[in-house]
Amino acid sequence: MKSYPVPLVPGPVTVPEEFRTAYIIDFGSSDLEEDFFSLYDEVQKKLQNLLETDETVVIQSGEAMGALWGALKSVLAPRSRVLAVAAGLFGRGFADMARALGHDVEIVAFGDDEIPEPEKVIDRIRTYRPHLVTAVHCETPSGTLAVLDGIGQATREAGALFCVDFVSSAGGAPLSVDTEFIDLGLLGSQKVLSLPPDLAVTTVSSRAWKAIARTGYVGYDALAPWQEVPHCRCLPYTHNWHALEALRRSLEAIEREGKEAAFERHRLVAAHCRRRLQELGLFLHPRRESYCSPTVTAVRVPDGWTWTDLDRKCRTKGVVFGSSFGDLAGKVFRVGHMGSQARLDLVDRGLDLLARVLDR
Amino acid sequence: MKSYPVPLVPGPVTVPEEFRTAYIIDFGSSDLEEDFFSLYDEVQKKLQNLLETDETVVIQSGEAMGALWGALKSVLAPRSRVLAVAAGLFGRGFADMARALGHDVEIVAFGDDEIPEPEKVIDRIRTYRPHLVTAVHCETPSGTLAVLDGIGQATREAGALFCVDFVSSAGGAPLSVDTEFIDLGLLGSQKVLSLPPDLAVTTVSSRAWKAIARTGYVGYDALAPWQEVPHCRCLPYTHNWHALEALRRSLEAIEREGKEAAFERHRLVAAHCRRRLQELGLFLHPRRESYCSPTVTAVRVPDGWTWTDLDRKCRTKGVVFGSSFGDLAGKVFRVGHMGSQARLDLVDRGLDLLARVLDR
Repeated sequence: MKSYPVPLVPGPVTVPEEFRTAYIIDFGSSDLEEDFFSLYDEVQKKLQNLLETDETVVIQSGEAMGALWGALKSVLAPRSRVLAVAAGLFGRGFADMARALGHDVEIVAFGDDEIPEPEKVIDRIRTYRPHLVTAVHCETPSGTLAVLDGIGQATREAGALFCVDFVSSAGGAPLSVDTEFIDLGLLGSQKVLSLPPDLAVTTVSSRAWKAIARTGYVGYDALAPWQEVPHCRCLPYTHNWHALEALRRSLEAIEREGKEAAFERHRLVAAHCRRRLQELGLFLHPRRESYCSPTVTAVRVPDGWTWTDLDRKCRTKGVVFGSSFGDLAGKVFRVGHMGSQARLDLVDRGLDLLARVLDR
Repeated sequence: MKSYPVPLVPGPVTVPEEFRTAYIIDFGSSDLEEDFFSLYDEVQKKLQNLLETDETVVIQSGEAMGALWGALKSVLAPRSRVLAVAAGLFGRGFADMARALGHDVEIVAFGDDEIPEPEKVIDRIRTYRPHLVTAVHCETPSGTLAVLDGIGQATREAGALFCVDFVSSAGGAPLSVDTEFIDLGLLGSQKVLSLPPDLAVTTVSSRAWKAIARTGYVGYDALAPWQEVPHCRCLPYTHNWHALEALRRSLEAIEREGKEAAFERHRLVAAHCRRRLQELGLFLHPRRESYCSPTVTAVRVPDGWTWTDLDRKCRTKGVVFGSSFGDLAGKVFRVGHMGSQARLDLVDRGLDLLARVLDR
C-alpha cells in the first residue's frame, strides 16, 4: 500500500474519497438491472457535455490503452494508410501500434519540446491522403498541449477519420470534439477525472460508426457492440458498475465546479507551477511556455542531479513527482497537476519540499 | 444503486465488505512502485496455488471476456483449426468467436442439459487434429460442470493447445491446471472470487508462450507483454492496483478457509440447494444431478409461471436469482451459490422466499 503524502505524479492521480467510496457499494448485476443502463445513459450524457459532442460516447471496462487499440482496430481495414502526428512518445506510439497492425504509416514529426504545426500537418494530409490521422492533445511525457486547429477539418475534407488521444487533457483544458471534427476521441479515467485506471472512454462519430461497420472488427476492445448501448440493454460483458458510479461522481464534481472554472483552475495552477519552478532556477522542458499543458509540467532534471537521486530525496520529504519515458527518461521529470491535483496548495507544498531538497 | 437483500445471481456475486474496502485505499502509481510489482508477484503465486499450476498466471485489467479473446487471439495463427467442446452457450460462444476471427472451427456438441463425454471428444481430437481445443468447465447458463478427464492429455498428444474457461468454477470446484494439461486457463474476478468484474486472469503454459511468440499478436488483450511481468517492472498500461489488492484479499480468504474446505462448502451448499428445490416440486435443468455444478444451480421455470413474473415476485420479496440466456432464456432460472454466496443460510433465505412466492 503506497499512498503519497504529496501526490504530484501525472496520473494515476490521487482519487478523492468521494469517488473512492463508490466502490464500497455492493451493487447488483450490471447485466440485469435497468438502474445500471440508466446510469450508463446518464454518464454518457455527462461525458457528451464535458467533451462537447452530440455523438456516441462508449465507456469500456479496462485501462485507457484499450481505447487506443480499440479505436485503431475498429475503424481500420487491412493495410490502411495512417498519418501519425507526433511531437512526443505517445504520438510515435500511435505510429508503432498502427505499424504493428500491418498498416502503412507516415509520421509528421516534431520535437519532443515542440507542438505540431497545423499547417505542416494539413499539407501532409493533403499529399498522403490517409484513411486515419492520429494526434495527441496532451503529450504527457513532454508536458505539452497541442493546438489542433484545422487538422480535423482537413482530415475530414480528405475523407479520413481523425483520432485524438486526449487522455491527459480532457476535463482540464478546453476541448470540443465536434468543433474539432474528432471522429474518435480517447480518454482514460485516471487522469483529470481522478479515478482508478479502470475505464476506457471513446467518442465515436457517425462517420466512425460507418467505418466500424465496414471493418467488422471483433474482440474485447471492439467498439461495434457499443453502438446501441444502453438502449439495447445488452453488453458484450459484465460491466463495472462501481467504476461507472465513480465516474458519475467525478463528472458531477466537474459540473458543480463548472467546466470553464475547472479549466481556469488548471490554467492558474499550471502557470503558478511553472513560475515557481523557474524561480527555483529550473528549466521547463517545452521550448516555449505557450506549449505547456495546463495538466502537467515537464521540467529538466537540474545539473548535478540524477533523476534517481532527486526522486529518492523528494520521496523522503513526502512528495512524489513523475519520471519521464523514452528519450526523455532521466532528463525530464514531471509535475502532475491535473484533476484532484490541480490545487495551488498541493503544488505549493510539493514545490516547497522540492526547494528544500534542492537547497534553493 | 441496486444492492440485493438476498443476492443469488450467479455472478457478479455480492462483494464482501472486506474486499470492497480495498478500493477506498488511495494507492500511488502502479507504473512506478516496487510495492505494486511485489503485490502482482504475490497474487500470481496465490493464483498458482489455487489453480494448481507452476506456469505463469497473467492478470489483466478488464472483464473476463478479455481473457477469452486474449487467449484465442494470442495463440492462433491465421486460419487455425479449432475444436470447440460445447455443452452449452459458452462452449458454442468459443466456436462463434473463433469463426469470427477467421479460423476453421468444428464443434463437438452435447445437449445443454448434458456434460461432454470425454471419449467422444478425444476421438474428435484424433480425427480433426486441431491447433486448439476449447472447453468450458462450468457452463454457467446450464448449471453444469464438465469432467475434463483425458481431454487435455489427448490435446497435448495431438500437438494442440488446450484452452479452458473455468470462469465460474475455479475456487469453487476442484481443478488442477497442470494435471489437466490446460495451456490457457481463463478466470474472471466476479464469480467465485467475489470481486467486481474488473480483472481477467489467464494461466499460460510454456507451450502456450511458444505459440504466443510465433503468433505475434498485439493489442490491449495480448498476452505477450505479460510474460516477464512482474520481473521486468514494466506493464503495457497502468494497472488497477485497487483491484489487485482486492484480489489478494479474496485469495487470502480462500487460503484461511483452506481450498479443500471451500470446495466442500460449495459442494454442500449446492447439494442442499438442489434438494430444497426438488422438495419445492421444481425440476433441475441438467439431465442428471451428477452433472450439476457446485457453483450454480439451473432449474426449470415452474409450469404456470413466466420467468418475468417469477423474477418480479421474487424481487418484491427481496431475493434475486439469475435468468438464463439463448435457448434456455425463459425456460430456466439459476441460483448462484458461488464464492460469497455459497452459504447455507443465504440459500435457505432465498429458497424460503421462493417457496412463499410459489405458495408451496
